[in-house]
Parts: sequence; structure tokens; C-alpha cells
Amino acid sequence: MPPRRYAFGRADEATHPDSIRATLAEFISTFIFVFAGEGSVLALDKIFRPADYGSYGHGSYGRGGHGYGHGYGRKGADTGRAASDLVVIAIAHAFALFSAVAASINISGGHVNPAVTFGALIGGRISLIRAFFYWVAQILGAIIASLLLRLATGGMRPMGFFVSSGVSELHGFLLEIILTFALVYTVYATAIDPKRGSLGTIAPLAIGLIVGANILVGGAFDGACMNPARAFGPSLVGWRWDNHWIYWIGPLLGGGLAALVYEYLVIPVEPPLHTHQPLAPEDY
Amino acid sequence: MPPRRYAFGRADEATHPDSIRATLAEFISTFIFVFAGEGSVLALDKIFRPADYGSYGHGSYGRGGHGYGHGYGRKGADTGRAASDLVVIAIAHAFALFSAVAASINISGGHVNPAVTFGALIGGRISLIRAFFYWVAQILGAIIASLLLRLATGGMRPMGFFVSSGVSELHGFLLEIILTFALVYTVYATAIDPKRGSLGTIAPLAIGLIVGANILVGGAFDGACMNPARAFGPSLVGWRWDNHWIYWIGPLLGGGLAALVYEYLVIPVEPPLHTHQPLAPEDY
Amino acid sequence: MPPRRYAFGRADEATHPDSIRATLAEFISTFIFVFAGEGSVLALDKIFRPADYGSYGHGSYGRGGHGYGHGYGRKGADTGRAASDLVVIAIAHAFALFSAVAASINISGGHVNPAVTFGALIGGRISLIRAFFYWVAQILGAIIASLLLRLATGGMRPMGFFVSSGVSELHGFLLEIILTFALVYTVYATAIDPKRGSLGTIAPLAIGLIVGANILVGGAFDGACMNPARAFGPSLVGWRWDNHWIYWIGPLLGGGLAALVYEYLVIPVEPPLHTHQPLAPEDY
Amino acid sequence: MPPRRYAFGRADEATHPDSIRATLAEFISTFIFVFAGEGSVLALDKIFRPADYGSYGHGSYGRGGHGYGHGYGRKGADTGRAASDLVVIAIAHAFALFSAVAASINISGGHVNPAVTFGALIGGRISLIRAFFYWVAQILGAIIASLLLRLATGGMRPMGFFVSSGVSELHGFLLEIILTFALVYTVYATAIDPKRGSLGTIAPLAIGLIVGANILVGGAFDGACMNPARAFGPSLVGWRWDNHWIYWIGPLLGGGLAALVYEYLVIPVEPPLHTHQPLAPEDY
Repeated sequence: MPPRRYAFGRADEATHPDSIRATLAEFISTFIFVFAGEGSVLALDKIFRPADYGSYGHGSYGRGGHGYGHGYGRKGADTGRAASDLVVIAIAHAFALFSAVAASINISGGHVNPAVTFGALIGGRISLIRAFFYWVAQILGAIIASLLLRLATGGMRPMGFFVSSGVSELHGFLLEIILTFALVYTVYATAIDPKRGSLGTIAPLAIGLIVGANILVGGAFDGACMNPARAFGPSLVGWRWDNHWIYWIGPLLGGGLAALVYEYLVIPVEPPLHTHQPLAPEDY
Repeated sequence: MPPRRYAFGRADEATHPDSIRATLAEFISTFIFVFAGEGSVLALDKIFRPADYGSYGHGSYGRGGHGYGHGYGRKGADTGRAASDLVVIAIAHAFALFSAVAASINISGGHVNPAVTFGALIGGRISLIRAFFYWVAQILGAIIASLLLRLATGGMRPMGFFVSSGVSELHGFLLEIILTFALVYTVYATAIDPKRGSLGTIAPLAIGLIVGANILVGGAFDGACMNPARAFGPSLVGWRWDNHWIYWIGPLLGGGLAALVYEYLVIPVEPPLHTHQPLAPEDY
Repeated sequence: MPPRRYAFGRADEATHPDSIRATLAEFISTFIFVFAGEGSVLALDKIFRPADYGSYGHGSYGRGGHGYGHGYGRKGADTGRAASDLVVIAIAHAFALFSAVAASINISGGHVNPAVTFGALIGGRISLIRAFFYWVAQILGAIIASLLLRLATGGMRPMGFFVSSGVSELHGFLLEIILTFALVYTVYATAIDPKRGSLGTIAPLAIGLIVGANILVGGAFDGACMNPARAFGPSLVGWRWDNHWIYWIGPLLGGGLAALVYEYLVIPVEPPLHTHQPLAPEDY
Repeated sequence: MPPRRYAFGRADEATHPDSIRATLAEFISTFIFVFAGEGSVLALDKIFRPADYGSYGHGSYGRGGHGYGHGYGRKGADTGRAASDLVVIAIAHAFALFSAVAASINISGGHVNPAVTFGALIGGRISLIRAFFYWVAQILGAIIASLLLRLATGGMRPMGFFVSSGVSELHGFLLEIILTFALVYTVYATAIDPKRGSLGTIAPLAIGLIVGANILVGGAFDGACMNPARAFGPSLVGWRWDNHWIYWIGPLLGGGLAALVYEYLVIPVEPPLHTHQPLAPEDY
């Protein structure tokens, strides 16, 4: 059984400069990721609704009837453009997450996602206090990104996530579990595993691109969120809460499951090199 | 002639913890890859058939007449969307395979494909018993992925692979041989060759992206499978067996041929360093 | 507080062979990037306006009424193609910037963007005289690229950047600040930070792909320039100056802000290793 | 001035096992690249012309009147699909070239392109005899790929390259020079420069993606070939020779120019480490 390196955290962890820097890095990287991710959704709206633009500022841009969002299947007449829409959204998320993880992996571990942080906590790779700081930073980053998006687009209301028409909440919930399992398993194998070696160089890319691939799967059904902060920021600023719980519970369950599988089944039983020495900063 | 390192395998290989971990890694990575790959095909169906959705659960979603699948040329009126469809499917496979190989390359060698395992076996890089374990794991991963896809999409029937209308089975068979040759040759050069050096860092990406490129070629003719497990899982769960044999024999022939070419013609004749010492885990 | 390594520059910096080589590398890489970036915009025009082609050579290809440019929302009837247009432009910029940065990062630091150079100057990573040389080289590279584009396309008038219809200048300005902040923060974390380690290997990719992601966000609103040279060359050769100031002031503000945040908040307070020794060429 | 390491080549170079292996690697990698590149063009034809399919086998698939090829602007009524077509072709070339270069860079230097070989020859990085072997291998690989494509597609006639309607040969010629300059400059900076260091790890990706970006620019005008072998194989098998000379002279001029610029202006004047010792295989 792997050692639980942190039970709660060191006494001075909250005020240690490294913790503060790591928390700041999570905040900024999540900001960059959510701005690009949610921004790409709004950009598609801007392209296809230029005539409606004037009303954006008044918040009247509703989802009812002619709504458009991550649930692509919901659209009626204009399905013809949906495949290239999916590509736009998947690439925006994949590329931006890659860069955001690359920009923070040496400083904070490059979580940029409360479900990844939860997995690292479940696996005993970070302390509870550090996880808490990361969660706050990630959620704040997502909120600020959503606010600035609304400001910079002249008042467009963020979409957030919801299940497509014809998809039940339970199916969306199951999808979030499975897709986040794939994501956090990839994070664990490429960025957390102490024996990852030179594979760590491409870890940010593997993390970004599995999210891109998964969006091409789940985007048509439930948006393929895999990240509670990514869902929460736009939901708060756009004040849309339909199905919101599945984007919290699903990713946390999937991420925790991936951490347990990797930490207890895949990582070698007795890593003699790493057991008795303190964890270097780049090891989690 | 390179040494055949394994004739059948070590006596304790089946129960060695490393073998179990490697087999588990192959299972999970193939699961991740097939879920994203087949899932992206179903997602396109979801986008373009929202009205039909209610009938998915009853398995009445047939291919006859208005069928849609990997054989893109088959479609009649709605060809206008096919180019961006191809992009969606190619990117989903490329990105997901990259991440799945990256997540398993340090543990199992990152095969994620029975044809790659067959090539490694032909080239003498793994034992028959390990190859057998990998095959079982890959096929099981593909089946579980297809089952969970059916569950999570509310009953959509997986497509699997078949040749497009106007394409003969023999042409599809030839395509599978050629495309898998390109894939396994790339695997050999970047991930198996003992002299690959720092190139190994980008091996997972080269493997994922050659699959993406090849799908843009063969997708319109026979789906460009290159992977028997990728074909078998959806065929079993969706119970579609047309042309199925070409997705087994083609990839195995192409992969075996690539292994022979690389192992006996490209790898230096006398690698003095690796002949007399046991193969390190990261060498296959 | 990090040391300000350069106040103005060494006396012989202007004539030092390394400075000349670095300046040349910036010139060529910016040329490559702007040729591909602006060229992809003209290519889309070529595809959709083959009938108008004869008039390109006479400069009558105006923007008024039926204009098309980076402001995608401006188009009226032909919005149906805009999502795949966005993908074309984002990928062209992302891939070309990646290659251009990779081709110059060992020689000049791979700025390829006056806003990145400005950030490096603000952070004390390069001298003012070197920054000046880079700026001249970047702007010249962008102008030559635009001129050769006009020549090679038989006289097509470069587009440059402007805000879309329905988007105010102020919103475009804000977008440029935010998007360039994300870009220069990524540059700082992956290519400038002295503790980046093996992350530097993928720095060019992270830099290229965050630009691709950001274009998918801002492309529909203001073109998502993030680079004054990228805006200036086409504006000069195409003689279009609407909203031009926001593509200078926005990126410089965003890039400077990112440099200040990273240099003073994220980089460790006391890097003992790098304070008292001269900066190696690959350190900036 | 950099040393000219090879005037003509060592006496035994033609029969040295390393030369034979390198030549074989060039042959196979060019085969993989051309099969995917030209194949993606045929795949688009297959998607949009399913009804014509029966006539493919008889070679009656002409270009006249309703022709379709790399010259996208030529098409009349069906321009609506061209942007996603461009994405398909650019990604297929970019991904396949990346993998093909990665699969051969350790063995042959990963040229996969007569223009790259010409640049390396001009810069004194390989001998004339080796360049000759590479050229033969590259051209043979392209021919075999085109033949197998014709066979596997049931007789579809390869397209090759030609300038679009409304584009003069001279403009296409100029484009080939510029685009190949960008490609070979990137090759030189990331894969040939002896001081490239860890940048070499991502060289294959930089090479593949600059080709992808350049296709998004030049694809609409002249196909953006940048590679005489890529043009020659399909031209021979499809027997189309319009404008063919520009795809030989243009890339050779652009590649030679890039080699001269990089070798004599960008590489440091006196590399003391590499002058007096034999070139290691991975150095060219």
C-alpha cells in the first residue's frame, strides 16, 4: 500500500511561500482555461446570432425554445453546423488546457480542475489544506473568467453545462463519471506517477488532448464538463443551474475512482526509492 | 538477425506483479481509447438525429437504407457534413489514442491494439504468454467501453466498422493492411527500437497522430480501423458483423509485416549493447 | 524582488554576433508566422470568392458592405461556414507560431511578438537595446510577409484586424488585454522561468496552442490578434487602420501585466542559483 | 564559414549498412506520408462523389469542367464545403508528416522530402551520394504509395498538384518558394542545427505542423506542395502534368535558400566543438 504522505498538511503549509505561489498558479491557469473554453462557446453564438447581438446586454438571451449550449442535440433546424462547432469547442478546450497545465505544472502540479485535486487528495498525493486552497483558487479563477467574458463580450450570458434534449440527467451523470475517470487516470499516469520519467514532458499535452477527445464524445450529450470549476463559474455568472449537480458529483466520483485504481493497483507495490525520502515539489 | 528474446515466456510471468499491472494498464487504456473513438461516432449520430432519439433504446436504429457509420460514402443526401465529420472522428481517435498510449507506455509498452501486440510478438519483443494477456485485456477493454457507451447514451447501438457502399471487401482489406503497416512501423521506430533515445518522449503522440491521419484517408472507404479490438467491441455490443474479418486479418497482417521489416531490415544488425543483457521493462 | 539584469544593455550588444543572429531569427520567424497567419485569412477569401478574383489585382477588393475579415460576426448571409473558417484560422496560427517559436527559441528566445518582447523587457529579462532590435525585426518581418503575400496572391489586399460589427472598440481592447495576458503568462511559465526545466521542451507548443485556443474565443469579436506586428504588417500593406490602436495598446498592456505577475508573484523570491551569475543565452 | 563536411561522400558510403538502412527509412517514411497526404484528397472525393464511384476504375474520372483537386478555388457550385476540406487535408499532411519524420529522424535524419535533402546538401550536411540515394528512395516511396492508393481505392486517379483557376503559374511558383523556405528553415533550426539541444525532441512535430499551417495558406492557390516527391508520385500514377515544374523548381529553390540563410547567417561562425570531429549519425 502506498504511503499516505499527508494526513492534513504541515502546520506552516498555508503560509509557506510555495503554497501561496502554487495557489496563485492554479487561480491563473484555471482563469486562462475557463476563459478560452467558455469563450469558445460564446464565440459560436456570436457568429450565428449577429442580429440578436443588441439584446445580449439585457440578459434576455435565453435558452428556452431556441436555446443553444453545450447540449448540441437540442438544436432544431440548424444542426448542419454542429460537427464543426464540436471541433471548435473541443480544440479550444484541448489547446487551452494543455497550455494552462503546462504553465502551472512545475509550480502547483497543474491541476486546473477540482476533480484532479480531489483525485490527488484521495491518492494521498497532496494534503487536505493544500487541496482546499486549490479548490478555492480554481473556483475563483473560473468565476473571474466568466465575469470578464461577460464584460468583454458586451454582456453575453455564459452558458454553463446542461444535458441535451432527450438525454436524461442520469445518463449525463454516468458520462461525467466515465469521462473524468479517463482524464484523471491520464493525469495520474503522466503527471503524478513517481516513475513517469521523461513522460512528464508531454503530460500537459496528454491531459489537454484527452479532454479534447472526450468533448467530441460527450459534447453532444451533456457537454462533457469533467471539471466542477469549469461548470460552476459560467453557471454562477449566467445564473443557469439546470442539472448542475451532475457536473460536481460526476467528476469527483470519476476522478476519485481513477486515483484509487492507479494508486493502489497500477503503481508498483514497493517503490523502494520513494518511500523513505521526502516528496520533491515536482513529485505531485 | 536480432535475438528472439522470448520463446514462450518465463514460468512465473503470468503471476508476476509487473505482468498483472501491465495487463491492467492495457485494459484501461484500450477502454479509454475505444470509449472516445466509438463515442465520437455515436455523438455525430446524436447531433444529426435528435428526432430519432426515442427509438435508440429499442435497438431499432438500423443501418439499412438510411444507415450511417464509418463508411461515410454510403450517405446520400447529407454528404455536405461529411468532411467535418471526418475531422471529428479523426481528432477524437488521434487525441484519445495519444493519451491512452501515454498513460500506459511506461507500464505495458502502450500497445492498446492487438495488432501492435502481434507486431511486438513477431519481432520477438514480448513473450507469447504476455501477448495473450494483452490481447484478452484489450478485447475486454473494448467490450466494456462499448457496453458503457450503450448504457450512457441511453441505448444507442454501437456502429463498429464496415466498408462503404461501392467499396469491395478486398479493397477494405488491402487498406487495413497498408494503414496498419504505417501505424505499427511508427510504433516500432518511436517506441520499441532500443536506439530510439529521446524520440521515445514523443512516441505516444506519433502513434496517436498517424492514426488520425490514416482515418482521414481510409475513413471514407472502410473506416480505417487498424485495430481488431477497436472493431470487435462495438461489433459485439452492436451485433454487426458485416466485413468483420477484414478488421482482424488486415491489421494483423499489416502489423506483422511492419514488425518484420523494422526488426530485420531497419534495426542495426549487431546491437552489441542489448544482446547479452536482460531486457529492461521500458525496452518493449 | 528579482534582479534587474539589464538596465540598458551592454555597450557592445548592438554589434555582437549573437545579437545580430538573434535579431535575424526574430525577423525570419515573424515572417513565417505572419505569412501563414494572414495567408490563411486570404486563402479563405480565395475559396469563397473565386468569381471576384480578377479584381484583386486592382485593389478594389473592399471591405465595405460585403467585407470579410477577422471580425467573423460581420458577415450576413454566409454565416454557415464561419465555424470551420475559425478552425482554419486558429490552426494556421497555432501550428505556424509553434514552428516559428521552435525555430528561434534557442537563438533569440522565440518571441516572434512585440508584446512578448515587451513583457520580457518589463520583467528585466532582456535589455532595452535588444528589445528595440527585436521590435524592428518583428515589424519588418510582418511587413515583408504581407508584401510577399500580396505579390504571391496576385494582388489580394491583406485584411489586418478590426472589431466585428456589434462589438465596440473598448470591448475589443479589453479582449486583447486578457488574451495577450494568457499568452505572455504561458510564455513566461514555459520559456522564460529559469526553473522551467524539461518543460522548456514543449514551450513552443504551449505558446502556439494558447494562441490557437484564444483565436477560437476572440476571433468572432475582434480577431484575437495578441501581437502588434501581426496586426501592423497587413494593416500597412492593405492600408486599413480602423481600430488599429487596440492591437498595439491591448497586447502591450496584457503582456506587461503578465510579466509583472509572473516575475514578481510566481517566480520564487530568492533564486540563489541565478542571481550572481551571468544569464546564459538560453535563459531568456 | 561552416566546414563542408562532405564533398562527394566516402568511398564505401553506398554499400555501408547505415546508408542502406537510412535509404530504406526514407523510402518507407515517404511512402507513409504520401499515402496519407494524397489519400486524404481522394477520400474527400469519395465522400462527395459516391454516385460516380463506378467509373473510377475506368480512369474516366477527369478534372475537366467539374474537376476537383488541390486547387480549391477551381470549384464552382460546391464551395461551401471547402473550408473543412482544407482542414482535412492540412491535418492529414501535418499528422502524417510528423509521424513519418519521427519514424526516420534517428536513422536517416527524417528528410522525407527531396527539397529537405537538397537543403542539407547545399548546407554541406550530407554527401552528394547520400542525397542521391535519398532522392531515389523518396521518389520511389511516393510512386509506390500512389500506385497502392489507386489499387486500394478501386482505381481512383490520383490528383497531384496544379494551380487553381485564376492563379498564374508564376504566382504558384513564388508560393512554393516561400512556403518551402519556411519548411526547410524550420527543419534546419530544429533538426539539423548542431546546437539544437533538447529542441530536437519536438523537431518532427515542428516540421509536420509548419506543413499543415502552410497548406492552410497555399492550398487554395496552388495546393501548397513543398515537396517534389509528394507531387511526382501522384502525377505519374494519375498522369497529370499541368504546372508540374513549379513543384520541383519552387521547393528546391526555397529549400536551398533556407539552407544557405541558416547555415551561413544563423549558425554561429565558429562552432569549435563540431569542426574537428566526425559527424555523429544523429547530427544530420
